Amino acid sequence: MEFSSKLLEKAVYEMSQLPGIGKRTALRLVLHLLKQPEEQTQFLATALRSLREEVKFCKQCHNISDAAVCEICANTSRNQGVVCVVEDIRDVMAIENTNQFRGVYHVLGGKISPIDGVGPSQLHINTLVEKVKTGAISELIFALSSTMEGDTTNFYIYKQIKEYPIKTSTIARGISVGDELEYADEVTLGRSIINRIPFENTLRQV
Amino acid sequence: MEFSSKLLEKAVYEMSQLPGIGKRTALRLVLHLLKQPEEQTQFLATALRSLREEVKFCKQCHNISDAAVCEICANTSRNQGVVCVVEDIRDVMAIENTNQFRGVYHVLGGKISPIDGVGPSQLHINTLVEKVKTGAISELIFALSSTMEGDTTNFYIYKQIKEYPIKTSTIARGISVGDELEYADEVTLGRSIINRIPFENTLRQV
Repeated sequence: MEFSSKLLEKAVYEMSQLPGIGKRTALRLVLHLLKQPEEQTQFLATALRSLREEVKFCKQCHNISDAAVCEICANTSRNQGVVCVVEDIRDVMAIENTNQFRGVYHVLGGKISPIDGVGPSQLHINTLVEKVKTGAISELIFALSSTMEGDTTNFYIYKQIKEYPIKTSTIARGISVGDELEYADEVTLGRSIINRIPFENTLRQV
Repeated sequence: MEFSSKLLEKAVYEMSQLPGIGKRTALRLVLHLLKQPEEQTQFLATALRSLREEVKFCKQCHNISDAAVCEICANTSRNQGVVCVVEDIRDVMAIENTNQFRGVYHVLGGKISPIDGVGPSQLHINTLVEKVKTGAISELIFALSSTMEGDTTNFYIYKQIKEYPIKTSTIARGISVGDELEYADEVTLGRSIINRIPFENTLRQV
């Protein structure tokens, strides 16, 4: 791609560094900004810059937060003893949207993935194990994605905390609500039969 | 979407103002920036801001340029009398990539489109007509996209310059090189028959 302006070329290059944004999309986005009022670009640049410079992570759960302790960890009406272990902040948002969880979170910041060069030391696993050691936690719910990396991470953490007297659980895997059985994959369908639940339980959930 | 941080919410909001970027994609992009070194966000913010603040448009052809006159218009080895009329800078880049055009451009900045609220006065049509009036132009090549808006714009400009002694042409419409006839749409195939070219001409182009 030949650019008629170095400024344009630089802006397109930086934009195309974002994941899933190629050179053509980057050019389209940048030209769009040029057609909009100058404030829009200023607002975007300022918002990105201040987020990056001023962002804080909750010292208890490592969630993104504006204060030293996030709203969820600071909320005394939530059960601080039940900790849901998730990969990143998007999972916190997804679970919060369900309105079904009244405990707190622990954000690992990723999964153990040797292929991507992510080892246990790059994740917030130590602080989780420390929390367990203090005896403040009664139950740990593993809510990582059901992949090899997720299972590895679950198991790695489990090995370090299994001697402590806490309950551990993982979120249920099964057929999605509203899905047709015939289209479900065998592994999910198989697990949903092995981990079947008493029918009376489903009546209570309605 | 519930955010745990106002800074994050603001960054996601500003990012999702870009075309084709929804809230979820914006969140993914912003969280990616948070994982990268702080410089990357600085570079992006600075590049966007300086482009928006310092961008210049060539006073002859309205192309984006770092100087008052763009490299193409300033190039004396190009034929300044042959002007290709295009919608935006991406079309200039596309035609430049073919290495087949040795004239100059005139960037309109859009097409006449009443449905989008774009009238002739918002486009760089007047400066084009002025250029024609000075007698500096020998040929005008319309290279707008072949849509109702493109055709309207072509015709609007044509009406204003038809009394002046210049050649006007549009780029050829036809079957793409390498395409199968059976998959071509009827309008394109029909036009390619009406506007057929002497076979000897194709021999010269090889």
